[in-house]
Amino acid sequence: MENIINVEKLTDETILIDIAKSLSDYEDGQIFKLCTALTDEKLSMILEQADEKSQIRIIEFLTNEKILKVFSYMQKDDIVDILGMLPTGKRKAIINLMKKGDRTIIEQLLGYKEDCAGGIMTTEYIAIRNTLDVNGALEKIKEISPKTEVLDTIFVTDDKKKLVGTVDLRDILIDDGKKKIEEITNKNFVYAEPETDQEEVALLATKYDLTVIPVVNKHMVMLGIITIDDIMDVMIEEQTEDVLRMGGVDKEETIDSTPLESLKMRFPWLFINLITAFLASMTVKQFEGTIAQVVALSATMSIVTGMGGNAGTQTVSIIIRNIAMGNVKLKDASKLIWKELLLGVANGAAVGLITGIVVFLIYKNFYLGLIIFLAMIGNLVVAGVTGLVIPLILDKLHIDPALSSSIFLTTATDTLGFFIFLSLANLFLPYLV
Amino acid sequence: MENIINVEKLTDETILIDIAKSLSDYEDGQIFKLCTALTDEKLSMILEQADEKSQIRIIEFLTNEKILKVFSYMQKDDIVDILGMLPTGKRKAIINLMKKGDRTIIEQLLGYKEDCAGGIMTTEYIAIRNTLDVNGALEKIKEISPKTEVLDTIFVTDDKKKLVGTVDLRDILIDDGKKKIEEITNKNFVYAEPETDQEEVALLATKYDLTVIPVVNKHMVMLGIITIDDIMDVMIEEQTEDVLRMGGVDKEETIDSTPLESLKMRFPWLFINLITAFLASMTVKQFEGTIAQVVALSATMSIVTGMGGNAGTQTVSIIIRNIAMGNVKLKDASKLIWKELLLGVANGAAVGLITGIVVFLIYKNFYLGLIIFLAMIGNLVVAGVTGLVIPLILDKLHIDPALSSSIFLTTATDTLGFFIFLSLANLFLPYLV
Repeated sequence: MENIINVEKLTDETILIDIAKSLSDYEDGQIFKLCTALTDEKLSMILEQADEKSQIRIIEFLTNEKILKVFSYMQKDDIVDILGMLPTGKRKAIINLMKKGDRTIIEQLLGYKEDCAGGIMTTEYIAIRNTLDVNGALEKIKEISPKTEVLDTIFVTDDKKKLVGTVDLRDILIDDGKKKIEEITNKNFVYAEPETDQEEVALLATKYDLTVIPVVNKHMVMLGIITIDDIMDVMIEEQTEDVLRMGGVDKEETIDSTPLESLKMRFPWLFINLITAFLASMTVKQFEGTIAQVVALSATMSIVTGMGGNAGTQTVSIIIRNIAMGNVKLKDASKLIWKELLLGVANGAAVGLITGIVVFLIYKNFYLGLIIFLAMIGNLVVAGVTGLVIPLILDKLHIDPALSSSIFLTTATDTLGFFIFLSLANLFLPYLV
Repeated sequence: MENIINVEKLTDETILIDIAKSLSDYEDGQIFKLCTALTDEKLSMILEQADEKSQIRIIEFLTNEKILKVFSYMQKDDIVDILGMLPTGKRKAIINLMKKGDRTIIEQLLGYKEDCAGGIMTTEYIAIRNTLDVNGALEKIKEISPKTEVLDTIFVTDDKKKLVGTVDLRDILIDDGKKKIEEITNKNFVYAEPETDQEEVALLATKYDLTVIPVVNKHMVMLGIITIDDIMDVMIEEQTEDVLRMGGVDKEETIDSTPLESLKMRFPWLFINLITAFLASMTVKQFEGTIAQVVALSATMSIVTGMGGNAGTQTVSIIIRNIAMGNVKLKDASKLIWKELLLGVANGAAVGLITGIVVFLIYKNFYLGLIIFLAMIGNLVVAGVTGLVIPLILDKLHIDPALSSSIFLTTATDTLGFFIFLSLANLFLPYLV
């Protein structure tokens, strides 16, 4: 914290980012000091790199006029992100202070959904006409370059402002200056539309090793670009979302959430799981008569359901990950189901055999061992099939499979697991008592 | 598949990447046709973008001399990745055919571990002397640029080849050519050492919005660079690893793994879980006398353990994700444990109250409702505390918390859940029968 004492000496971007990333540890007085002591440009860097909560805290210390000055050093997409978090009144007041050109762009960007290409694109890019020669292009690039994030990919447009291709800055630099841009334009390029989901944009970028993706409208007119830093942010966001949702945690929960915030976010998930648990419990209740006669069933039945849950989670994880990478769809299910059936039988037989032998040795009852062996195969087949089908169906229904697969899976493996095991026990009851 | 018929027309990188990404659907004959029909340069693009299995399939169709020609169009890090997969004999034969300079670099790169900075860096970058002026620098850049992936960040070295900073190509382009490079060098930069873990490199890149990170040795002499495409690959790899490991799946398993491969990779995890299940089962066995008297316990006890597992997984997910992002360490546990204790009590009381009431209504026994309420609080506290502490301890021990947290968590919530609930039942036994 001592490094904000000499705040006027902070010249380096790396140090500013370090400060920005640790703002959640700063008290209000320290944030205020930062806001007053830093130049607009440095403050803009801090603001850009801070997390959402800290961004709002900073904004609260600034007048609308000061905010506008700080914004003048920022990319449009970052400005829009911040404006999107502000109360409507404050947001409108700031936008009304902007120059007309900026206002139009900002209002347009604010119109796009946050998690699609339009919501993460910026409007600072280098576009040149295809009729220019290389020398003219280089002049234009020198002029625009201080205002853009991306330098090595230059976008080429025709006389109707339509995007016709890209040029690699390398090809411009090594040319003697006489060639027409048209001649060195790469006309086969990847682009997104404003409505393209951000996850899809990230997939495109990683698939084609792109550091920038242009966003165009239906008429191929260029609207903006999505830069690699935003793509990396999307990747981290989606990764966090997947891990948290698979664990039944709201994607908004952070390590800094207050206990009350965490409670509000975690309880609904537990409540849904509770319903599942009751379903399983009701299944067991139907067999209380059987259990009363063979109490050993109560100690062994949870092995069958537990292993079903574990095996099903393995399948779900593989499928969720491959859905996220765009490798698998519902239509592939029929191809994959044979493997899961086979795996269910094989893993079920292996796990069931071990369990059956141990149970036989403990309880000295062959039939108890046999029914646990059979029930394990049955439940691991249930686990494999539901673990495969559930995430694929959820994906087809446009529900994030990471979010709710486990609920449906557990319902199947717990309820059916108990049912299979206890039904078998009922069948073999004369041999068990 | 029809697009490989006119293979000589394939000029565009995008199409080549599409082919490279779908090679697993190609038959050997088609791969052979690709290998013979494509130019060395196009084949190098396919090879670079293909998955590991397809890379090996392609290599098998090529002579060592042809491989060398194809390699001449590739980055050193990609060459090393491929060489690393080949049998030692084949690898040595190819390396021996290389020019001495290349051979030295390749052998050095092969010496680094695959998942650290040295293993993912490449040696094609632009480095200029700090004593050059901007015009001289621009000449040098034009000369090297066709051979490098990264253009907008230029590395600056001193007379001892030590890295002293970076220059933004923008600053070179807009200058009139007279300034010394030293004057526009950014001297505060982020770097990695060859041993730096690749996950840490990706964290650095995302934190500081970098598209390239230099790798230096202990004397700050530049060894190579890590480019954004490799950083994105690392991010995807780590993400896949986290999701799969949390689900108890080996990171090597893909959707294309054969049933036998999957069986071999999934069974060990199920076996470890089986031991956990037996532990829980043995706990229940200790209370068989109690259960025999109150058979309702057998239907209700799994609600307590199940909810403990769910609540614990929520905490584990939050902690694992924050460990991965470098936000939390074991030393923070004491600060966070109060929140988890509080959450355990609050969620336990809420979930326990609902469960208690429902159980009371079904079984018409107040004390059964009461013990399930108390046991739920107890087990959700166990879940919160172990869910917090286990991944942090595993991280401290340099064990991936995504891999094994769930095993320890389930052991705690199942075994202690049964124990708490059934002990309470024992205590209140006179009121239950």
